[in-house]
Amino acid sequence: MNAPTTDAPAAYRRATVIGGGVIGISWAALFLAHGLEVTANDPRPDAEQQVLAGLAEITPTLSELGLPTEDFASRLRFEADLAAAVADADVVQENGPERLEVKQRIWRAVEHAAPAHALLATSTSGIPASAIAEAMEQPERLVVGHPFNPPHLVPLVEIVPGAKTSARTLLQARDFYASLGKKPQILRKEIPGFVANRLQSALFRECVHLVAEGVVTEAELDEIVTDSIGLRWAVAGPFRTFHLGGGPGGLPHFIQHLGSAMEATWPGLGNPTFDEPTVAVLTEQAQEAFGDETVGELAAGRDRAQIALMRALGKTPDTAPDIAAVHA
Amino acid sequence: MNAPTTDAPAAYRRATVIGGGVIGISWAALFLAHGLEVTANDPRPDAEQQVLAGLAEITPTLSELGLPTEDFASRLRFEADLAAAVADADVVQENGPERLEVKQRIWRAVEHAAPAHALLATSTSGIPASAIAEAMEQPERLVVGHPFNPPHLVPLVEIVPGAKTSARTLLQARDFYASLGKKPQILRKEIPGFVANRLQSALFRECVHLVAEGVVTEAELDEIVTDSIGLRWAVAGPFRTFHLGGGPGGLPHFIQHLGSAMEATWPGLGNPTFDEPTVAVLTEQAQEAFGDETVGELAAGRDRAQIALMRALGKTPDTAPDIAAVHA
Repeated sequence: MNAPTTDAPAAYRRATVIGGGVIGISWAALFLAHGLEVTANDPRPDAEQQVLAGLAEITPTLSELGLPTEDFASRLRFEADLAAAVADADVVQENGPERLEVKQRIWRAVEHAAPAHALLATSTSGIPASAIAEAMEQPERLVVGHPFNPPHLVPLVEIVPGAKTSARTLLQARDFYASLGKKPQILRKEIPGFVANRLQSALFRECVHLVAEGVVTEAELDEIVTDSIGLRWAVAGPFRTFHLGGGPGGLPHFIQHLGSAMEATWPGLGNPTFDEPTVAVLTEQAQEAFGDETVGELAAGRDRAQIALMRALGKTPDTAPDIAAVHA
Repeated sequence: MNAPTTDAPAAYRRATVIGGGVIGISWAALFLAHGLEVTANDPRPDAEQQVLAGLAEITPTLSELGLPTEDFASRLRFEADLAAAVADADVVQENGPERLEVKQRIWRAVEHAAPAHALLATSTSGIPASAIAEAMEQPERLVVGHPFNPPHLVPLVEIVPGAKTSARTLLQARDFYASLGKKPQILRKEIPGFVANRLQSALFRECVHLVAEGVVTEAELDEIVTDSIGLRWAVAGPFRTFHLGGGPGGLPHFIQHLGSAMEATWPGLGNPTFDEPTVAVLTEQAQEAFGDETVGELAAGRDRAQIALMRALGKTPDTAPDIAAVHA
C-alpha cells in the first residue's frame, strides 16, 4: 500500500497522558503501540511503577490485536510537573479524578503550558466539557474524548463538544483518534452520560428489574443477551435491526405497524432501586455466577473472545482497512 | 465422538409446524436440517408455495452454518387439516396469528388430536401461555417456545411457563431445543414481553429519545452500539460486564460504589413517544441510512457477519461442542 499518508497522523508525535489510572494506562499503551512518544504525568509517588505494571499487563492484548509492542515502553517518560509534562505535547489526554474542581485546575494550567497547536481532550465520562471550560481562557480548545473502557481494545471514542468547543477542535480530535484505529463519533449535543453509557444504563435498569423480580438470574440473563440481542448488536445497531425486522418496508413500516404497540410496553418496564434486598440478591448471584474465577481471569477470557470476534468482523488493527489508504 | 446419545433427541422424529409465515418457515428449515420429518399446516391456499420459496431462501444460510440441507425438503409434507397434521407429531410448534382467540381455537383442537407424548409449544412473543391454556383441558402441556428471530440463526429460545405448565413440559422443551443446537432458557416467571424483547425495548426507548433530541442520527447511534456495547454484549452479558468493570471486587463493589450514581441517572433517561415529528425524523433518517440497498440485501449482509461472528465464538452448529457428547 504505497498510498500517501495524510498530514494528520504525522501531526501527533508527542502525547501527554495525565493520570496514571486504568484509563490513562490504556491510552498510553495504545499511543505507544502507534508509535507516539508518550509523557505520563501523575503526582502519586508510585505512579511510574503502577503505569509500567499496567503496561506489562496490557501488552499481550495489544500483540493479539496485531500491534507492535517490542520495546515500545522505551518511548515512555514520566514527568511529575504538569507544566513541564505538556510543554511539547501535540495532544494532551487527561484522565484525572472525576471532580470538577480538579479538572478545572488541571486544564487551567495545561492551556497555558501546552503548545498552541496541541489537541486538548478529557476522558471524563460524567463532567461536561462546558463546565470544565468555564475555568479556561480558551474554552474552544477543550473537547471530551470519552473512550469505552478499555480504550486499547474497544473501538468507540465519543467526541463531545462543550458549548464553546470549536469545529476545528472536533475535527482535530476525530482525525487523531481515527489515526489510532479507533472509531470516533462526534455527538451533536452535550448530554449527561453521552450516548453509550446512557444506552447501557437504560438496558441495565431493566436487567436489575428482571433479576429483582425473580424472572431470571444474573447468569441466565447474561446468557439470554449473549445468545440474542448481543450477537445482533455486534453486527447491526438497534435501528438497522428494526429496519431489517420491518420486512421490505423497513423501519418506517416497522414503526407504523408496531410502534404504538412498543410504546405501550414502555410504561410497564421496570423502575428498580438499589435498595437493600435488591443489592443483596445482586451480590449473592454475582458470587454464584462469577465467584469461581478472579475478575482478572474472567476479564482475560472476555478479552480473548472480544478479539476473536473483532478479527472475524475485520475490526482489529491488523484486519481493519488501512486508514491512510482509505483517505488517500 | 462415539459417546452414547441421550434418549431425548431420538424422541423427536416428527414435528408439526402450524403457520407458514416467516417464523414457521424458519422453524421448519431448522427441524429439517436436524433430520426431523416435518408436517406443515396452514389453511392458506398458497401455503405450500410460500413455504417452499421461504425454505429455498434460507437454505444457503443453513449451509453456511454447517448444517446438512441436501434433499432436506423431501422430508417435508403439507397437511391442510389441523387434526390430521398433528396426529403423529412428537412436537407441535405453533406460529399462528398473534390473536388470543385464534391460538385458543388451534390449541383446543391440537391437544386432542396430537399424541399424548407430544411436546406442545407456541412461538408467541406476546400472548401468555396462561391465557391460551385457559381454553385447554390439559394446560400443563402447553409452553411458550419463543425464538429470537430468525430461529434458524439466532441461538436463544425463551421457554416461558404458563400458570399451569408442568415441570415435565418445561424440561421436555429444553431438551428438544437443545437437541437442535439452540440455547434454551427457562424463565422462572411469566412476564409480558419475556426477557429479550423487554431488554430490546428498554434500549430502543433511549435510542428513539437520543435521535429525537438530535444528539445523534440513527446511523451514528448504530455505529456507537456496534463499536462498543454491542461488541461487549456479544461476549459478556450486562452483569458480567459490570462485574469486570468493578475491579477485583467485581459487581458487588461496582454496585456499592457506583450503584447510587447510576440509579440517579435513570430518571433522566428519555421518555419519547412515536408522535408525528418523531416518526418523521425516524423515517427520514432510515431512508438516508439504509435506503441505498433493499432490506433483503442488508439482511443478507447482516447474516453473513452474524455467522462469521458466531463461528469465531464457537457458536455455529459445526463449531459448537457436541451436545450429545456433553450430556453423555
